[in-house]
Amino acid sequence: MGQLVQLQKNNKDFDYYLTLLKKLCNNDLQSINSIIIEKLDSNVPLIQEIASHLILSGGKRLRPLLTSCCFKICKQKLNHNDKDYLGLAAAVEFIHAATLLHDDVVDKSKKRRGSPTANEIWGNKTSVLVGDFLFSRAFQLMTKYGNQEMLKILSDTSVTISEGEILELSNDKDPTISENTYFEVINGKTASLFSAACQMGAISSKTTNEKIDALKYFGTNFGMSFQLIDDAIDYSSSSFDLGKNIGDDFKEGKVTLPIILAYLRSNNSEKKFWKKTIQDLKQDNNDFENAIEIIKKYNCIDDTIERARHFANIAKDSLGVFENNEFKKILLNIIDSGLERIK
Amino acid sequence: MGQLVQLQKNNKDFDYYLTLLKKLCNNDLQSINSIIIEKLDSNVPLIQEIASHLILSGGKRLRPLLTSCCFKICKQKLNHNDKDYLGLAAAVEFIHAATLLHDDVVDKSKKRRGSPTANEIWGNKTSVLVGDFLFSRAFQLMTKYGNQEMLKILSDTSVTISEGEILELSNDKDPTISENTYFEVINGKTASLFSAACQMGAISSKTTNEKIDALKYFGTNFGMSFQLIDDAIDYSSSSFDLGKNIGDDFKEGKVTLPIILAYLRSNNSEKKFWKKTIQDLKQDNNDFENAIEIIKKYNCIDDTIERARHFANIAKDSLGVFENNEFKKILLNIIDSGLERIK
Repeated sequence: MGQLVQLQKNNKDFDYYLTLLKKLCNNDLQSINSIIIEKLDSNVPLIQEIASHLILSGGKRLRPLLTSCCFKICKQKLNHNDKDYLGLAAAVEFIHAATLLHDDVVDKSKKRRGSPTANEIWGNKTSVLVGDFLFSRAFQLMTKYGNQEMLKILSDTSVTISEGEILELSNDKDPTISENTYFEVINGKTASLFSAACQMGAISSKTTNEKIDALKYFGTNFGMSFQLIDDAIDYSSSSFDLGKNIGDDFKEGKVTLPIILAYLRSNNSEKKFWKKTIQDLKQDNNDFENAIEIIKKYNCIDDTIERARHFANIAKDSLGVFENNEFKKILLNIIDSGLERIK
Repeated sequence: MGQLVQLQKNNKDFDYYLTLLKKLCNNDLQSINSIIIEKLDSNVPLIQEIASHLILSGGKRLRPLLTSCCFKICKQKLNHNDKDYLGLAAAVEFIHAATLLHDDVVDKSKKRRGSPTANEIWGNKTSVLVGDFLFSRAFQLMTKYGNQEMLKILSDTSVTISEGEILELSNDKDPTISENTYFEVINGKTASLFSAACQMGAISSKTTNEKIDALKYFGTNFGMSFQLIDDAIDYSSSSFDLGKNIGDDFKEGKVTLPIILAYLRSNNSEKKFWKKTIQDLKQDNNDFENAIEIIKKYNCIDDTIERARHFANIAKDSLGVFENNEFKKILLNIIDSGLERIK
């Protein structure tokens, strides 16, 4: 069978640990959801409708969970006063939701999590403006719950996200970009907000700088690993469960690591194929199969997973500063099973 | 002649006082421009190119000037430490620039200040993302230079701006919206950021709450007045100087106060005309002239100016708490000459 076959059992594993994490952090998750719902409120009915569509439609809440779990890994005995990180977790989720709305406009996406995107239902204009609203709400939450250090991290993260998105757009449909440029893109698009989410939890717990740093890099490396596996899944034959269509990235001419590696390793006629299908977006009926074939020939999925494993290993090692406890265990399992979402 | 004739001389007056204000605040304006240029810097070349196109292409810098002038009206003897308001003024200008980029996408505008818009040159995607970048930069600046109170004002203002924009979009091409709903829209779109700009100056000067409040409402009412005159100018016959085409609002079916008043006062056949031209956007060759005729018949430009004058008067009165000084005088003149931009 080989690299393109994803086992149902393993796919369940990630969901299993995610569910376990949700159970462990259930009280926090309830509180964060309450803050989110409260802050979706607006005098303008359209805002509530659209924002709710996106933010209450079954996202994994992975980022707020990271904030909660990182708080708890540092501080298992809570005071009644320990509430601010919940508002910050909600802020992180609002930033995430804002970028999703704008991404879907930029990518002209029609589906997200198996449902029509907001831009598909309400149009681009509304999505742009409601994205701005969510971002502003995030800023309100941070201002209310964050200290100077946290505000700096979150505002720097927002800049990094924007820069990552624009860097990606600048290299749109260019299969010749370097692997390191691509890492910069996915650090912006995914890893930086994972890291910020973790830092919000850690800093709120008033733990040591060593532990804050550990969770900062845990978040970054987990994010890198997570995104690379997502990239690989789009060329995997069993991605139906994820509410994503397999081959979407290819059809859109989106350049991700499997393509970058394949291009670098291709002979001249294969390079022409990539330029035709990705750069010029001229795709014939069986070109996705042809793409898969070249990708397999050069082992690009396995090597994408290897890159992901590299980041996953760094993420896991960064947790070395913590005692063994249930929160550490679940984070380690989440990382490992995250890799196993494919193959 | 009548209401639609704008006198060249009076139009110069506003520019004259604006130039005078720029001279009075010249040192501040230089410093603010330096901060802006520094913060346009990015590793991603496309960002610098687009952001510079917008932000360095001859905007009036009205909002940063308000911050500077409001600081100085409160505190004329400066310390060397009094620098933070300059960073906040730059933040306000970045928020303004971000909303312009997104507005031009939403409105599909082709020109701004007589030049092609960013979306016209680089496309909608880039404009959305560079808008996000500028907004994130604004947030970085606020975090660096603002205190908790200022951060709350600026984040609340961002929410108000978004809500205003979405409220406007929800009522797109609807000539039947109420005057008060429209006031809510322009408070969001214009007045709230004018007010925030003024408050940043006032709070930074560590003046009394009475004076901070005075400048807060000065900004709001000046903004309302300024926007209403802008609305009226679009139906005036001599708007060439402004780099705006007369009749743009009508052609786009944009509902502003002249239309709202005209619709409320129209007979049934005229109401049908508005529904055809604005709601259905079915416009024949001479429909702009027909629109002007109905607007003139019901005195809607004069009455829009009257509404603007109402807000201008409140703005001027709010300055009553200040001693006479050159900064107060210039603000009073700016308000008066702002009204005289038309008629």
